[in-house]
Amino acid sequence: MKLLDDDRLFPGNPKGLGLARALFASIRDLPIVSPHGHTDPAWFARNASFENPAALFVTPDHYVFRMLYSQGVALEDLGIKPNDGSAFETDPREIWRRFASHYYLFRGTPSRLWIDHSLQEVFGVSQVLSGETADEIYDQVAQSLTQPEFRPRALFDRFNIDVIATTEGALDTLEHHDAITKSDWRGRVITTYRPDAVIDPDHPQFSANLQNFAEITTCDTTTWQGYLDAHRARRQTFREHGATATDHGHPTARTANLAASEAEALFNSVVSEKHTPEQAELFRAQMLTEMAKMSQDDGMVMQIHPGSYRNHSSEVFSRFGADKGFDIPRRTNYVSDLRPLLDVAGHDPNFTLIVFTLDETAYGRELAPLAGVYPALKLGPAWWFFDSADGMRRFRELTTETAGFYNTVGFNDDTRAFCSIPARHDVARRVDCAFLASLITSGRLREDEAFELAQDLTVNLAKRAYRL
Amino acid sequence: MKLLDDDRLFPGNPKGLGLARALFASIRDLPIVSPHGHTDPAWFARNASFENPAALFVTPDHYVFRMLYSQGVALEDLGIKPNDGSAFETDPREIWRRFASHYYLFRGTPSRLWIDHSLQEVFGVSQVLSGETADEIYDQVAQSLTQPEFRPRALFDRFNIDVIATTEGALDTLEHHDAITKSDWRGRVITTYRPDAVIDPDHPQFSANLQNFAEITTCDTTTWQGYLDAHRARRQTFREHGATATDHGHPTARTANLAASEAEALFNSVVSEKHTPEQAELFRAQMLTEMAKMSQDDGMVMQIHPGSYRNHSSEVFSRFGADKGFDIPRRTNYVSDLRPLLDVAGHDPNFTLIVFTLDETAYGRELAPLAGVYPALKLGPAWWFFDSADGMRRFRELTTETAGFYNTVGFNDDTRAFCSIPARHDVARRVDCAFLASLITSGRLREDEAFELAQDLTVNLAKRAYRL
Amino acid sequence: MKLLDDDRLFPGNPKGLGLARALFASIRDLPIVSPHGHTDPAWFARNASFENPAALFVTPDHYVFRMLYSQGVALEDLGIKPNDGSAFETDPREIWRRFASHYYLFRGTPSRLWIDHSLQEVFGVSQVLSGETADEIYDQVAQSLTQPEFRPRALFDRFNIDVIATTEGALDTLEHHDAITKSDWRGRVITTYRPDAVIDPDHPQFSANLQNFAEITTCDTTTWQGYLDAHRARRQTFREHGATATDHGHPTARTANLAASEAEALFNSVVSEKHTPEQAELFRAQMLTEMAKMSQDDGMVMQIHPGSYRNHSSEVFSRFGADKGFDIPRRTNYVSDLRPLLDVAGHDPNFTLIVFTLDETAYGRELAPLAGVYPALKLGPAWWFFDSADGMRRFRELTTETAGFYNTVGFNDDTRAFCSIPARHDVARRVDCAFLASLITSGRLREDEAFELAQDLTVNLAKRAYRL
Repeated sequence: MKLLDDDRLFPGNPKGLGLARALFASIRDLPIVSPHGHTDPAWFARNASFENPAALFVTPDHYVFRMLYSQGVALEDLGIKPNDGSAFETDPREIWRRFASHYYLFRGTPSRLWIDHSLQEVFGVSQVLSGETADEIYDQVAQSLTQPEFRPRALFDRFNIDVIATTEGALDTLEHHDAITKSDWRGRVITTYRPDAVIDPDHPQFSANLQNFAEITTCDTTTWQGYLDAHRARRQTFREHGATATDHGHPTARTANLAASEAEALFNSVVSEKHTPEQAELFRAQMLTEMAKMSQDDGMVMQIHPGSYRNHSSEVFSRFGADKGFDIPRRTNYVSDLRPLLDVAGHDPNFTLIVFTLDETAYGRELAPLAGVYPALKLGPAWWFFDSADGMRRFRELTTETAGFYNTVGFNDDTRAFCSIPARHDVARRVDCAFLASLITSGRLREDEAFELAQDLTVNLAKRAYRL
Repeated sequence: MKLLDDDRLFPGNPKGLGLARALFASIRDLPIVSPHGHTDPAWFARNASFENPAALFVTPDHYVFRMLYSQGVALEDLGIKPNDGSAFETDPREIWRRFASHYYLFRGTPSRLWIDHSLQEVFGVSQVLSGETADEIYDQVAQSLTQPEFRPRALFDRFNIDVIATTEGALDTLEHHDAITKSDWRGRVITTYRPDAVIDPDHPQFSANLQNFAEITTCDTTTWQGYLDAHRARRQTFREHGATATDHGHPTARTANLAASEAEALFNSVVSEKHTPEQAELFRAQMLTEMAKMSQDDGMVMQIHPGSYRNHSSEVFSRFGADKGFDIPRRTNYVSDLRPLLDVAGHDPNFTLIVFTLDETAYGRELAPLAGVYPALKLGPAWWFFDSADGMRRFRELTTETAGFYNTVGFNDDTRAFCSIPARHDVARRVDCAFLASLITSGRLREDEAFELAQDLTVNLAKRAYRL
Repeated sequence: MKLLDDDRLFPGNPKGLGLARALFASIRDLPIVSPHGHTDPAWFARNASFENPAALFVTPDHYVFRMLYSQGVALEDLGIKPNDGSAFETDPREIWRRFASHYYLFRGTPSRLWIDHSLQEVFGVSQVLSGETADEIYDQVAQSLTQPEFRPRALFDRFNIDVIATTEGALDTLEHHDAITKSDWRGRVITTYRPDAVIDPDHPQFSANLQNFAEITTCDTTTWQGYLDAHRARRQTFREHGATATDHGHPTARTANLAASEAEALFNSVVSEKHTPEQAELFRAQMLTEMAKMSQDDGMVMQIHPGSYRNHSSEVFSRFGADKGFDIPRRTNYVSDLRPLLDVAGHDPNFTLIVFTLDETAYGRELAPLAGVYPALKLGPAWWFFDSADGMRRFRELTTETAGFYNTVGFNDDTRAFCSIPARHDVARRVDCAFLASLITSGRLREDEAFELAQDLTVNLAKRAYRL
């Protein structure tokens, strides 16, 4: 049987369905532009086979293991290693069986669409995943993974990826990007500068990170100017490895524009580890504006991903560490928080700031009105928990009215699940085509415009916004 | 004429309509599971006839009298008794006439659907309620109420209620539940432990309530340990009267996890009535965590209904008392507020916390992400003002993406309007079937899954979550 | 070709489409009631020709120039005059060409619908506006503007406007309204009392305004009683110029109910310009309640338009002044903010308070529950950024459940773009008809009710609420 409906995510009424089909047909074969995500550059540098089905589908996917955990499956039983040395499952087939027997939990979720799409389109699976079919599908996927056409570079080419951006910390050696460049493979894998670990005074290793930052850059990161120079140096190195963008994941969207002397004094407090929580927040805020100023100089596109309450469960954080499904969105205020940065750089035609949100209430109230007037500001696509068919539709419905389409930047798959990349772009393209079809059927858009927009939303806006 | 459309609340497109009809047909005759509500156990204990149509449809229904009041009908004229001894309407027929002549105000509201459903399905009314038909319908309903088949127990059986939970305060004698148990009637009517009046230091009778609490339990409620013991004793008694759950209606979702000595000191401040507003809030917060810990011990499911600004109009509160339609939702923060309690009990497989909201913005941003990872946490259904067809649809659209279906708990009718219970479950079942149909038609769910889910959403999830 | 689809904004399913068409046919020719907006009374007083297409469509329309600015078109190039004396475009044809060549930016926005409607229905344009057609359409519109039937009074009559309210500041001479009354033209153009500039202590000219206020009213505006008397005097004058309403645009919805002596002391602080920001906010809050009390006396309907962060860009504000597209919505709290005013006047059957919001999250959570119980409180229609087809639909979906239709007040076009008035009412009427049709097709409303409601939503509710 087919796991996927050919008309999935298209409108129910015949006219809208016909239009959505035609629009989708016009863009379905366009290459994938992936300007923001978390794939591992080592995959493309080494081109080693992926290990096994569990390592591909379960252990790295926080959407998957958080859902299973919520229904009583222990993280250890999904192969996630506890810090305290206690036992955890190491048999990938057992992990896969647990996943398969709980697969019904994903009914109605985007993970279900992504996984069915990966299984059918990448691995040719034609059975519904369940406890009964677990072993058979495991064997089929595991067998595929041993074949050369399932190695990372072959999949990259098969997925028709034009360019993909990975995300590396400020202290990364970028060795894998080096290796890719030096190889005879022509896939375009670029990096992105993500300096949170040397910007956030609340990072557990902040102090050690600053030392490391000094060693890598040979700048004196104990002084404000030296610290800023270190950023400039690393941004330069990242650009040499293809980076066109920076990325910043802060608890809030707060920015600041302190006088130089105040900023320096604040840095001194922070670096001496005598800062208050408010000073830590203010330093992160000031650094967003410093990053914006550097972007004005070096042309790197700036992304802000704010609003996640990280590691909500202290128990899970202490036993398993970060990124274990316990990052929870919270309310985010953009209107006053972004103002200091926008005062500095918001009118600069050479500067681009792409803002994301985990607080959908900000789409219509704050983000679309801001992006609909500041030349530098663009709206990133529906993110994380909202990277679903309905989430994408809400994004369009709530932002287009005020910001139009041309203050948005196309789709981000934002994933570390490599095989889900085609699935995610497929969902985004379908939802956009369905939205365009609904604008036509409700008399708000002409067909010729919709076909042009379909191209723009799929490829052109992303290339333009990210300078690719 | 028929007041109700057979296809009400189903999708407009033919394929979706056909699917919704088939799904609904498969569950429409399942028994009603009502794990949370406010029916009066005296009805079932005494099995006396309901008094008259106004006492059944108008005076107890805050949805009804608030709407009429908003359009200029005095509360006195609807039979609501002022505290100051001034006159109020005592003729039920006059009250009914006022209600009927203003019935057009309910166009587009859930009350309209519920009332039409009750009139048609329970009383066989086939005319539209209005000023002109008021008397005729009054007579028809009043005449029915004199018949044995319209007494509470007969209606309970006719409504096909499998189990219904009432809600009683910590100081309740539970005499009606006793009487029901001792009767020869086999209807399952269980209680729920709702201790707000002995937990909230801002309750006007808090001090007297604590004394009463001591008398009932023979615990010393002037000490922290004695006070906690009194709760344990009452929970035990409630469990003996069938209770499987507790319920907590607090102004916010705040929880706290103080050290034992701090909690004791806080209790001493509170009990001596020398507390600040912040201490009152902190005490309520701490008590939610204490209740969670007791639930870990005794297995009672815990419900939190937060976020209502009670008695918004001081004039109406002073003249008519509480629960007069002036409880207004406000923003609620779950991410940081629930964290202390979840740190204590959120990973316990034997503990279930069902959280509700009056702030729909929290569905996708906070509640679904939390319920989608904490094993103990489940999402209660759309509540109060959002217990409408569109409110239920929004609930599914905004929570399913992240939490799936299996971290939700089925439907609550949550009503004191007995005759509306079948109507409310009918709406919930139809909306769920319409939502499932829309998932099928958009290629996100298979039909066999939808039929299984329809059963789960109607009966199984409620029974499992509430341990019924 | 036709720019507009006859069935625009109607439902996609055949039954809903048929119903929406029938409902719309029953109200499409009803006169326009425009109880709140910003047209210039001088147009109707002088009845001079409109200058040129750019002055009509571009320069006064902040929706238009903010979108163009967001995509890199300088405000100067759109004819907006800088304060610093630097150059700006004065050739209307050049401005029009820039607008036309960027017209694609408005795809999917309400501006697109309004402008296409104005071009086709008012000026008979049948080509799509673009860089290529810019000159031809410019000539066609410019030629029309020279004709007598395109003068303001003729358009007013052609638009079938029953009554239109303009908005004037407390210091306005109302000379144009005088002139209209004294003319032989019978169009009904009334004013509205908008006293923000003499109420807001943060207004840059507050002090000078108070002096001016004293001169106009011959009241001593240096004393609290004299200041209140000045308001009473001006309200009286505005009423004599047709005003039935006041309007208040504050940063928040905060109201206060201070004791008389506290209010007086606060006024003294404010008038001496020694106030803190909190005192300024408190003064605005207190003045809303004072305005409510005066409305109880003189019967003027009170409107509050809160929640805009004005002049977000300091650069644009300093170079171009206010109202340049940089007013951004922010979160607004109605539950506690409106309570002091509602305690004073919320139950008065002779008082009407119409509240608007830029924070859509308040519709279902706060505003509908408040308006669904307080007799004085009514909900204004979807406002500003939300005055779009989807915005209006969300307004109905989120407020009707709890407040019904009869606690809303019909449509406001709220515009200074005269030619867009028919377009905006057309959109509102279509969206309401589509919403009513969807209630019928989902079995929530009978057809006869929907036809009655269509009349109410189009004309009756506005006339009743605004006492027109």
